[in-house]
Amino acid sequence: MKTLITNAYVLDMLGDTANIEKKDILIHDHIIEKIDYNMIELVDEKINAKNMLIMPGLVNTHTHLAMSIFRGYKTDRKLMDWLENAIYPVEDQLEPEDIYWNSYLSCLEMIKSGTTTCNDMYFGMNKTIEAIKDIGLRAIVAWNIKDDAIKDKVEKTREYATIYNEDKNSKIKIYVSADAPHTCSPYTFGLCVDLAKELKTGLHIHLAETLEEEEIVQNTYKKTSTEYLNDLHVFDVPVVLAHGIYVSDNDIQILKHITGGISHNPISNCKLSSGICNVAKLRENGIVVGLGSDGIGSTSTMDMFEEMKTAAYLQKVNTMQPGIISAYEILKMATIEGARVLGLDKEIGTLEPGKKADMIFIKMDKIHLCPENDICANIVYSANGADVDTVMIDGKMIMQNRKMIYVNEKEIMRHVKKIVKRLL
Amino acid sequence: MKTLITNAYVLDMLGDTANIEKKDILIHDHIIEKIDYNMIELVDEKINAKNMLIMPGLVNTHTHLAMSIFRGYKTDRKLMDWLENAIYPVEDQLEPEDIYWNSYLSCLEMIKSGTTTCNDMYFGMNKTIEAIKDIGLRAIVAWNIKDDAIKDKVEKTREYATIYNEDKNSKIKIYVSADAPHTCSPYTFGLCVDLAKELKTGLHIHLAETLEEEEIVQNTYKKTSTEYLNDLHVFDVPVVLAHGIYVSDNDIQILKHITGGISHNPISNCKLSSGICNVAKLRENGIVVGLGSDGIGSTSTMDMFEEMKTAAYLQKVNTMQPGIISAYEILKMATIEGARVLGLDKEIGTLEPGKKADMIFIKMDKIHLCPENDICANIVYSANGADVDTVMIDGKMIMQNRKMIYVNEKEIMRHVKKIVKRLL
Repeated sequence: MKTLITNAYVLDMLGDTANIEKKDILIHDHIIEKIDYNMIELVDEKINAKNMLIMPGLVNTHTHLAMSIFRGYKTDRKLMDWLENAIYPVEDQLEPEDIYWNSYLSCLEMIKSGTTTCNDMYFGMNKTIEAIKDIGLRAIVAWNIKDDAIKDKVEKTREYATIYNEDKNSKIKIYVSADAPHTCSPYTFGLCVDLAKELKTGLHIHLAETLEEEEIVQNTYKKTSTEYLNDLHVFDVPVVLAHGIYVSDNDIQILKHITGGISHNPISNCKLSSGICNVAKLRENGIVVGLGSDGIGSTSTMDMFEEMKTAAYLQKVNTMQPGIISAYEILKMATIEGARVLGLDKEIGTLEPGKKADMIFIKMDKIHLCPENDICANIVYSANGADVDTVMIDGKMIMQNRKMIYVNEKEIMRHVKKIVKRLL
Repeated sequence: MKTLITNAYVLDMLGDTANIEKKDILIHDHIIEKIDYNMIELVDEKINAKNMLIMPGLVNTHTHLAMSIFRGYKTDRKLMDWLENAIYPVEDQLEPEDIYWNSYLSCLEMIKSGTTTCNDMYFGMNKTIEAIKDIGLRAIVAWNIKDDAIKDKVEKTREYATIYNEDKNSKIKIYVSADAPHTCSPYTFGLCVDLAKELKTGLHIHLAETLEEEEIVQNTYKKTSTEYLNDLHVFDVPVVLAHGIYVSDNDIQILKHITGGISHNPISNCKLSSGICNVAKLRENGIVVGLGSDGIGSTSTMDMFEEMKTAAYLQKVNTMQPGIISAYEILKMATIEGARVLGLDKEIGTLEPGKKADMIFIKMDKIHLCPENDICANIVYSANGADVDTVMIDGKMIMQNRKMIYVNEKEIMRHVKKIVKRLL
């Protein structure tokens, strides 16, 4: 199947400055075959993308998809209080079908706001994988492992990694997840690292999200979380480190050498009063930083446009330097650098021949995006998820003119509301 | 003319906690006549607001409407650098017609994202007033007065105040504006205070927006900006004080006694690296704080939903207390407290009999607003301007189903783009 997209302004996210040109995009099955001026090609389908800006689909590097039922639930609390007194008691009652519908809602919200890839960590992940597959998203998935009930999760991780990681065309990949330094013993981390090595995959970990957690680790092990992980040889494998707020200068020297990177979750970090990650400093030191939403429970939104804005605002006001990070750099964090954090930068994150056809169309002829002095600034500071008109993942149209092609949205909401009624 | 709105969930913004009930709203000409359950009334028009939440229109307490052409223009700079090297040289070339179209675009963006009242300060305000009237917004308008060319602006202020402030039904009111403590001498402030007293109106002033400005004032007058204003008897009249970031404990003691309040502009303050206003502390001291966007040049958006989110995020992460401000309190800042800052709280800001019929309908049956564990949290943390379906100002429908009833949006964009092409 060949598709030709014409008349679009293409923001390819290649290079150090924005490159936006009126070009056509030729897609062959799952792959971008060619991007060029005024192409004439015999194709199966032509799409006229007039007034649209096409850019790579957004990459959300840290999610808990099944937590959508917790939107706005017992909000305005600190992380540990919120988890222990609001979330954990309900999570214990979640049935597999709940995980499916809750995950589905998060996926739907992501696609409707331009995210085409996510990196998820939770439990009951077989049902989350089902939802991701049914809706057609690209994702890395990991069973969250803490010190308890390890065996079952290790087996599940191995079983699903065998299915998905060896299938070159699969949009789903399996990572190993060790929850966090304050919840996983050296034994657990050792086991997770060995498993990741065996499966030739990476590790998804919460790192230094709150001062309280960091203090627990430092009191227990007399070292920082990052030093703890480093001493356990965790960084021998690729890692996605969510949050990374409380890192010392020495930690940064360690993190410079990791494969993978940090997932910065600005909204969650604000809403839970966790703190502000010094993204500017991490980036100055060559550490790759992507953006993530965390679960809907803590952020209340999966809209990566909101994460982009908030990330920019926080760095500018925290460093008191408005030029510390540009709109284009924020867009890189939400696309190619997010892909790099996930080890997917050879497949996605930019628009260029040979890469997977994951792209979003942003409708530009709108009042709140006028005038167009700086299109990247408009996308980051003026647009929001509702400006995403069309979403293509792996060469397949998922949403067009804001309508999900294969999904009955009302039915998904009905299912989720039923779960909420039962549990909350 | 009588209109009955049925089937809506009404968030009236009365009281200290959210009150949301399924009620009908009866509107008689410009005024809310009655809000009650299942009303049966003989009316001219019935509006079925199924699946909608109706709340008071949002109040934007600090704008520079004519600055819309500067969206994304030479962004990522500090305030003084940005003003002196990017903005002022272009502003000098603005023609009256430019002011009209630029203001129109800002008004349009405001209405499309749920703002029904704004408080504007700029120059060439007769053309801004024209745009505000043509689109049907409620507004306070003031000619920005600095130390130069005072006479003309004083005369304009007096002329327009005579027209609008004495007309009880006018949606436009005229304030006096003295730009800021670092740009206005004691003579200028004295003159502006006298004028405000003569016209029985208020003063709109930038206060302590940046550390640099505050240092200029303290070096010149050996006192803080707030003390400077206090000593000049500025607070004898109602005031809207935009920003208020650099205020001392003593300043707060002074500000406790003002009529009016502070306009907090969180996005502008972040984007220009101005600093974080300690809204929580101001509010604890009984100072009224509303929300504002500032001009599109500095914020890149007029969407008050974005200001609400950012205000909440900043307070939570700045104080490290997630409960420091609730979603409902943020909504109050964007409605009734904004109205109080503008001295309009007897007319707008809540939904109750006798008040002006300024209201917005938010479409609630959307993926990103599901489930509804906490509707106020959903509005503040999960919604954005694009969720505003319908806008009524002064009893008149301005937008329905996201369509502007009397405006050709494309034509407005065409005008603004022509101005940009000529000037930028």
